[in-house]
Amino acid sequence: MSLDFFHRPASVAVVGASDDPEKIGGRPLRYMREFGYGGLVVPVNPKREQVQGMATVARLEDSPVVPDVALIGVPGEAAVRAVATAADMGVKGCVVMSSGFGETGRTEGAALQAELLGHARRTGMRIVGPNSQGLASFHSGAVLGFSTLFTEEPPADGPVGIISQSGALASVPYGILRRRGIGVRYAHGTGNDADVSASELAVTAIDDPELKLLMLYLENVGDPEWLVQLGERSRANGVPVVALVGGRSQRGSRAAASHTGALATERRVLDAFFERVGIWQVQSVRELVSASELYLQDWAPTGSSLAVVSNSGAVCVLAADAAEDAGLPLASLAPSTVSRLVEELPAFAATTNPVDVTAALLTDSSIFGRVLPVLGADPSVDACLLGIPVAGRGYDVDQFARDAATFAASGTPLVCAIPQPNVAAPFVALGLPVFEEEASALAALGQYLAHLRRMSRADTLPRPVTGARPSVTPGALNESESLAGLAELGIPVVPHELVSSAAQVGDAFTRLGVPSVVVKGCSSDATHKSELGLVRLRRTSPSSASSAAAEIAASAALHGLELDGFLVAPMVSGLHEALIGAHLDPVFGPVMVIGAGGVHVEAVPDTQVLLAPCTVEEVHEAIARLRLAPLLAGVRGEEASDVDAWAKAVVRASEALADPTSPVAGFDANPVMLLADGVVAVDAVVLRR
Amino acid sequence: MSLDFFHRPASVAVVGASDDPEKIGGRPLRYMREFGYGGLVVPVNPKREQVQGMATVARLEDSPVVPDVALIGVPGEAAVRAVATAADMGVKGCVVMSSGFGETGRTEGAALQAELLGHARRTGMRIVGPNSQGLASFHSGAVLGFSTLFTEEPPADGPVGIISQSGALASVPYGILRRRGIGVRYAHGTGNDADVSASELAVTAIDDPELKLLMLYLENVGDPEWLVQLGERSRANGVPVVALVGGRSQRGSRAAASHTGALATERRVLDAFFERVGIWQVQSVRELVSASELYLQDWAPTGSSLAVVSNSGAVCVLAADAAEDAGLPLASLAPSTVSRLVEELPAFAATTNPVDVTAALLTDSSIFGRVLPVLGADPSVDACLLGIPVAGRGYDVDQFARDAATFAASGTPLVCAIPQPNVAAPFVALGLPVFEEEASALAALGQYLAHLRRMSRADTLPRPVTGARPSVTPGALNESESLAGLAELGIPVVPHELVSSAAQVGDAFTRLGVPSVVVKGCSSDATHKSELGLVRLRRTSPSSASSAAAEIAASAALHGLELDGFLVAPMVSGLHEALIGAHLDPVFGPVMVIGAGGVHVEAVPDTQVLLAPCTVEEVHEAIARLRLAPLLAGVRGEEASDVDAWAKAVVRASEALADPTSPVAGFDANPVMLLADGVVAVDAVVLRR
Repeated sequence: MSLDFFHRPASVAVVGASDDPEKIGGRPLRYMREFGYGGLVVPVNPKREQVQGMATVARLEDSPVVPDVALIGVPGEAAVRAVATAADMGVKGCVVMSSGFGETGRTEGAALQAELLGHARRTGMRIVGPNSQGLASFHSGAVLGFSTLFTEEPPADGPVGIISQSGALASVPYGILRRRGIGVRYAHGTGNDADVSASELAVTAIDDPELKLLMLYLENVGDPEWLVQLGERSRANGVPVVALVGGRSQRGSRAAASHTGALATERRVLDAFFERVGIWQVQSVRELVSASELYLQDWAPTGSSLAVVSNSGAVCVLAADAAEDAGLPLASLAPSTVSRLVEELPAFAATTNPVDVTAALLTDSSIFGRVLPVLGADPSVDACLLGIPVAGRGYDVDQFARDAATFAASGTPLVCAIPQPNVAAPFVALGLPVFEEEASALAALGQYLAHLRRMSRADTLPRPVTGARPSVTPGALNESESLAGLAELGIPVVPHELVSSAAQVGDAFTRLGVPSVVVKGCSSDATHKSELGLVRLRRTSPSSASSAAAEIAASAALHGLELDGFLVAPMVSGLHEALIGAHLDPVFGPVMVIGAGGVHVEAVPDTQVLLAPCTVEEVHEAIARLRLAPLLAGVRGEEASDVDAWAKAVVRASEALADPTSPVAGFDANPVMLLADGVVAVDAVVLRR
Repeated sequence: MSLDFFHRPASVAVVGASDDPEKIGGRPLRYMREFGYGGLVVPVNPKREQVQGMATVARLEDSPVVPDVALIGVPGEAAVRAVATAADMGVKGCVVMSSGFGETGRTEGAALQAELLGHARRTGMRIVGPNSQGLASFHSGAVLGFSTLFTEEPPADGPVGIISQSGALASVPYGILRRRGIGVRYAHGTGNDADVSASELAVTAIDDPELKLLMLYLENVGDPEWLVQLGERSRANGVPVVALVGGRSQRGSRAAASHTGALATERRVLDAFFERVGIWQVQSVRELVSASELYLQDWAPTGSSLAVVSNSGAVCVLAADAAEDAGLPLASLAPSTVSRLVEELPAFAATTNPVDVTAALLTDSSIFGRVLPVLGADPSVDACLLGIPVAGRGYDVDQFARDAATFAASGTPLVCAIPQPNVAAPFVALGLPVFEEEASALAALGQYLAHLRRMSRADTLPRPVTGARPSVTPGALNESESLAGLAELGIPVVPHELVSSAAQVGDAFTRLGVPSVVVKGCSSDATHKSELGLVRLRRTSPSSASSAAAEIAASAALHGLELDGFLVAPMVSGLHEALIGAHLDPVFGPVMVIGAGGVHVEAVPDTQVLLAPCTVEEVHEAIARLRLAPLLAGVRGEEASDVDAWAKAVVRASEALADPTSPVAGFDANPVMLLADGVVAVDAVVLRR
């Protein structure tokens, strides 16, 4: 159901309406008047007949209409009573600004919050908050909140939406964007997210046809289904979503848990999730806002090869360095482009990329206007940086800006690095993205282009599985059962026999008919079997295999371990040792881990995380990111490993895990021997739910 | 010799003096008049009796005094004649602004530049440039240059020096600092550095007792001896040097080579060099200027444990994340500190670190003034972040700023994250470092603290060896000679015998008296011996060793390789395989490489670079940075490797290489087997000069 009534309510009751326009219950009244809210406002105040010149009603139930939204600014028990009344009246939604609820970490607060939620559930009314700074929608003027920043930085409706769990993190990007002259349509601080979450509200906002960019601040992912939907609508509507999720460090996560009760989730799973749904994740407020101007352009970028133009050789050098950092390869210009540049530029200019037009700019103001189209016409150029470190008096800066704007209007992304505010001003006035220096400009360009690529790609990937699974204490299977479980999941396993006595181990050797076997004590109690003396390698006769079993039995007895039998299997050596693992993330569900295998995986981890189900392309890309990757094709005369067999085994297992009825809670297959033809898991632990 | 005459010349002749104050030969006259130069200015112009109201002389030699500095603004041949005249007159130094010399990449330009240099060498006169934007010293008003930016952003003398090869990269940080209200004493753009380099000029500037921070932009290191001296004086004077070296990417390096003829040097060697001399290296203009305000404080930091205080829970969360990125651990507050915070703060505040003072700030303006001293008194707190994401009307912002300034004046570093300009203003006015958000603030704090640590540490490290070595085409020794060479360098090598026939290989086996040997074909032609069939492992009898030699001889014949004999050595397996290498960097001299060894070092490199000579502590730290490091202590029951023996072998070899008379041009010992007790190199190539 759309929550658009929070954005364009026909009527708003303000419970706790204050005559003082600086009080929490007074500011929304003032803001709605000042910022042009056209609906009906019903101030509720039992003690005054008027507040801020508006007639009040004494109680919410006295409202002449059933308001679309009730904005609650009274504390504690009074807030609960107001919410109960609103629910009884058939109010569509409440915004509860009052604090003293779940965020206190105290029993009474949590109980009051549960009461609020109970009233909402009873009638289907929705609640934003409690402990919410409120929602502000500047297209409608419906400012259902009390942020002081709207007086400090006057609002203007525009193409950016900001939806944040934290009031401060709604206000900070709002202020930064407004000071940069960018209009903001939504500036929401949702608070405790007891009912409506920031993500759910974002799903409504992103269907707004005027929106071009949505920013999200979260500390608590809540139900990831809303983010999956947000990603889908982001891609369908062509409105990119940039998200900052606080708490990625251990200490930050602890602070977030105390602040909003965030659930700890492995950061790499979160990263994989955002990649899958096409949302761009940033690490700081600076990154949250840095590329905003780029998202607001009407460009249709086709690639990421960069051309650099500057009147400074040093800026050319630094831009080439920064382009590498930003993942933007420098375009190799076509010979015809170079010839045309030679015609257009003075003798000492650099006519390859980066293009150094030199100080000739001072005497030839049309130089950018001639050079940029030449670069734009080269099919190898996907985007441009224009760097003007020094200009001012004597330079025709207005002409430079006009030429840049004409070029950008042709559809090729253009970013400018212009440190002097007076030189930057005409570029900014023409709507161009201007940065203080080349590294910031190219980082923003790199983010923008990578984000659009991520959005296109997300359309080709499976939808994440987000339903929670009944939580049962997981139990480990023994190795024989685990290998059988792996095989069911589609991962090839080593042939093996489980026998119950040392004598039978000798017989198993003979039946296997291989030159050399491994004998292991089979137990669901034991991990790190080698250290416990439960593994004997390279036994080459029935008798040595039998005696291995006897040694293992003695070790097990020493450590008080119950054995389910002896596992006998051929010795297999791979070209390389890999691992395939899986677990259920408490927020995001089934997750695959792939990486280098062997006994050192904990000490020197080399792994990648993927959401299940995953595609074979995704697994190949993840494998390519492993440190192990360069060895897999075979170096220095070694054979190539069958990477495709590895990838396909991962995909099969991921599909099995993605089935919500799967009995498997996780597994760890390590090592998985990579062979020249195929792969085979030789050791495994499977956990059942 | 001090170049201070360039900074405080008693007299300046301007050759090519122009009446037009916007021309290159006119601007210096105007600037010196406007910015208070008190010495004698002699305009040289054969065509006018007066320029800008000053009487001219027709020719430089007509100057009434021998000027300290001649500033040359005439082109090509005329510039060469003026420099020749200046040399003849006994002028101390010339600043040649004219272009058309070495920077053109053309023969004529290079020849003219050589002529300039010849005149200087003839008399000991010094030259800055050619192609220099000029030198600007604002304590003396001696503006010997033409940067347009001094009209755009009026100068003010202050504690920062900027010395740059590029004019633009002198102007850009100058402008950024000036707009932030920071005074700049030197803004030099040196150009082609034919004689005086930016680094040499920096060595003079850093002895200025008023300087607190020096910024350097280089594309070309030139003679690293100047940077060694700069580092020494930086540490002795307590004036940090922050350096940006353009051209670290492949394309950037190519652009730098065409721009200033920079010599390609491996970036990791440059990094090791700057670390050794205590200069902080940044990657962009943003980083060059970002921590400036911190360097200008009179703090005496003792460590890097951070306390965070904010009125926003989200800022606390994000600051904890950013602190981790910046290498700043969050301080664990003493129980007594927490008790005092509980007393000072409202019930719902977070009284552990990060400290969330909550919205109570609005009603209690003294809260920062009470909380900051409590944190400052805790010995675990080395630095603080104060985050105020939202404030404004209703808040006593001036009081917050005063309380912050009082705290910072007590000597504990304090950075502020305050996005609203009007809230930030009183903090800035009191000289506090203010940033738009927490991540930028903590990145700057992290740089500042790490830089001061690097400076202290540099005092304990050996002085880099910078003298160039006679360049002789290096020749590879065969393995036997190489092993002998390694042993001379102090690296333990495997015992071995070099014999000339297959029969003698069997005898050598017997003499070695070990259970298993390796037999190798010994040749100085061959690297990657295994692929060529020149290595046979694990021969366990005289006859199998002999037949190995016969196989090797056949392989050698097949590949047309001349063998110097057969090398027979015991099979040694290490706990881990390491490598020790060395080479002569064309700029920085002898360099050591350590890392994980084995056949995959090229495909999956895991190495660290150190300047020779190095200390055993440095090597231990470098080893700790290796990916291999966690394995060296022994994991999962494995034995620990003798890391100290490895480190000491590296130090001995580094000391031998640091001797300028060393005949060794480089070596590659791989693998070096790490044993439980000691290390032993089993394969090596040594290059002689």
